[in-house]
Amino acid sequence: MTIIDFRLRPPLKGFLDTVMYSQGARRDRITGYHGMKPARSAQAQSIDLLLEEMDEAGITRGVAMGRYSGLYGTVSNEDVAAIVKAYPGRFIGVASIDPSNRGQAIRQIEDARAAGLVGVNLEPGAYPTPMYADDRRLYPIYAYCEDNNIPVVMMAGGSAGPDLSYTVPVHVDRVAGDFPKMKLAISHGGWPWVHEILHVAFRRENVYLSPDQYLCGMAGSEDYVRAANGYLSERFLYASSYPFISAKDYLAWFRTLPIRQEVMERLLHLNAATFLNVSV
Amino acid sequence: MTIIDFRLRPPLKGFLDTVMYSQGARRDRITGYHGMKPARSAQAQSIDLLLEEMDEAGITRGVAMGRYSGLYGTVSNEDVAAIVKAYPGRFIGVASIDPSNRGQAIRQIEDARAAGLVGVNLEPGAYPTPMYADDRRLYPIYAYCEDNNIPVVMMAGGSAGPDLSYTVPVHVDRVAGDFPKMKLAISHGGWPWVHEILHVAFRRENVYLSPDQYLCGMAGSEDYVRAANGYLSERFLYASSYPFISAKDYLAWFRTLPIRQEVMERLLHLNAATFLNVSV
Amino acid sequence: MTIIDFRLRPPLKGFLDTVMYSQGARRDRITGYHGMKPARSAQAQSIDLLLEEMDEAGITRGVAMGRYSGLYGTVSNEDVAAIVKAYPGRFIGVASIDPSNRGQAIRQIEDARAAGLVGVNLEPGAYPTPMYADDRRLYPIYAYCEDNNIPVVMMAGGSAGPDLSYTVPVHVDRVAGDFPKMKLAISHGGWPWVHEILHVAFRRENVYLSPDQYLCGMAGSEDYVRAANGYLSERFLYASSYPFISAKDYLAWFRTLPIRQEVMERLLHLNAATFLNVSV
Repeated sequence: MTIIDFRLRPPLKGFLDTVMYSQGARRDRITGYHGMKPARSAQAQSIDLLLEEMDEAGITRGVAMGRYSGLYGTVSNEDVAAIVKAYPGRFIGVASIDPSNRGQAIRQIEDARAAGLVGVNLEPGAYPTPMYADDRRLYPIYAYCEDNNIPVVMMAGGSAGPDLSYTVPVHVDRVAGDFPKMKLAISHGGWPWVHEILHVAFRRENVYLSPDQYLCGMAGSEDYVRAANGYLSERFLYASSYPFISAKDYLAWFRTLPIRQEVMERLLHLNAATFLNVSV
Repeated sequence: MTIIDFRLRPPLKGFLDTVMYSQGARRDRITGYHGMKPARSAQAQSIDLLLEEMDEAGITRGVAMGRYSGLYGTVSNEDVAAIVKAYPGRFIGVASIDPSNRGQAIRQIEDARAAGLVGVNLEPGAYPTPMYADDRRLYPIYAYCEDNNIPVVMMAGGSAGPDLSYTVPVHVDRVAGDFPKMKLAISHGGWPWVHEILHVAFRRENVYLSPDQYLCGMAGSEDYVRAANGYLSERFLYASSYPFISAKDYLAWFRTLPIRQEVMERLLHLNAATFLNVSV
Repeated sequence: MTIIDFRLRPPLKGFLDTVMYSQGARRDRITGYHGMKPARSAQAQSIDLLLEEMDEAGITRGVAMGRYSGLYGTVSNEDVAAIVKAYPGRFIGVASIDPSNRGQAIRQIEDARAAGLVGVNLEPGAYPTPMYADDRRLYPIYAYCEDNNIPVVMMAGGSAGPDLSYTVPVHVDRVAGDFPKMKLAISHGGWPWVHEILHVAFRRENVYLSPDQYLCGMAGSEDYVRAANGYLSERFLYASSYPFISAKDYLAWFRTLPIRQEVMERLLHLNAATFLNVSV
């Protein structure tokens, strides 16, 4: 069976400059908070070990997303495209943008798509100038993505901005309602606003949820799982958030969840493929 | 045993123009999201079938509420009164108002009471001009209802307005605190803000909760049930939200919940009768 | 084994003027809402009975906090210091301040520390002029406490202010992020915002949680317990919130929670001792 890990950042290029690799002690502490052990590949910053762990687990592909962040560091679209190219069939690339200039941002998207990246990752709270998801400056970007059928990933959970206000799901709800044809995947699953984001996804059929690391050992996980088994069975995305959690260990843990078998297969690859418009 | 379903909209008159009947595919999709099957009576828009289903289940009466809504359609007080009259003993009517003119709104309430309706239903977020529950324009209405011992139902959960901000329980909490003698029932139970509305009801003894359809298969249901068994045993209201869920199927499902027997009897009729000032 | 109850207000001096003693019927109703029975010592306002109950349960010390409150009444630092002195080894005292004059407030802290009190209790929403936790007027106090390694307790859960907005954890999150070296214990554990405060404590390592009475029979308790067993094992504080719940009964109940044995020992005394800089 094909498995797509929707959030997996390999120890390569710009990713090594982001805090998930440059601050290993912080990362390993967070890993422990999830009740998990650090991945050998993460600590060794070894792509070979990572590919080995993925192979052992049967994880076919990982989604590697660019980012443009004041808080967490930047990974350029060029780096993401180079990684996709260097490891054929192992990574699916998603672009990031600089939202401060809408014209330039759209050119970034066009260039990234030409280079094979399949979607856009927005991290409003983590930009050098933090903003909320429904900030007016992002609306031209949303309009462009909706008009061109480009899937949008948004980090709208966890420590997505300087404080907890940046994950309040009201902002995401407005965006999803204002752009009903734009597919929108919520990375970190809106956590900790579990009940509230589950209503957003209940009401807005263009919303996909990827709770990733925050599904693991965190508050509200039973509610995420219930929705995955129910009305979110076609819009729940599987993701480890590697290197914060070992991709291999996360999969082993995920398989222990009480998820119906036919749903499990959707979660592990089909939903991500549908969202990203890629073949399984 | 008498059973009062606190939210039950029959396929009659103005109700047929609201989205719950005019958009059958949307309704049936939502029904499925709750893990339930459409009611035959809802799909056939048949009051005879509905009464048959109610009889089979032992549901004595349903509370039919008027509404004045931009989002969802309007059901006039005249329609509600006519339905109550046409099916003696089967429906309890609750009035709605147009909040844009306070004098007229109070006349609407007076007229509706004269016609036998027993309370007022407010849907702030769904008005043609959406507002929050603590909007100043509603305060004269609240004052009138408190002064005249008129129970107030408020839709303050689910998709109660254009976006998720309209269900944030802070607004309801202020209203309940500012009018401590006004009985206030929260339809849709404040969902998805389950923990927060449970605090509002913990703190404000004039607040009743009716999670209705959002109790079924949705996040946080265990917490609603724990409160129903505990400090909300006299203020938790039973409601199917028919036609979104079959009144009969909802009752069968509700009876499977781990609710103490003596509490179950309160939930199924006594609490609603007390709230609405009607005899059991 | 030593046991420290982090929130225990004896029936003495100024405490008797606060609503927890002056409004006994309200208190007993709340006790019942938690599924518990009133403490004999609370109803009799008897310190001798309280000490007897503490002895029977093995509760070594209780943390008695001053308060300066419009909503709930005031307990002066002088009263708290006198109580600590009058019952040697039984109470640990924490000071309160009047936030309306920052210079005076800091002198209050200095005086209280000289009198043996070990921390500062802030109740922003309950001040005569209610404020949010991130109110600018509190920032000089936070700065002073951070600079002088003074632990800060904040009532930021339950009915902490005139309405639910005063417990929204966004405010606390900003304070914890702006003063990362200031130890901050959240009394009432941020309830009802269970998921959200658990993220604040996940992200901010200077935050301790004390859900106290709101752990008992209330929404989200399983999530608090999961965190206590996991990433909060060194930052979760045991507290009964006596007289709202009997200190003795609370302990008996707390011991039935599925908490790992080695964690239980941390919760019952070591975490509080570490937070307050007192010996076990």
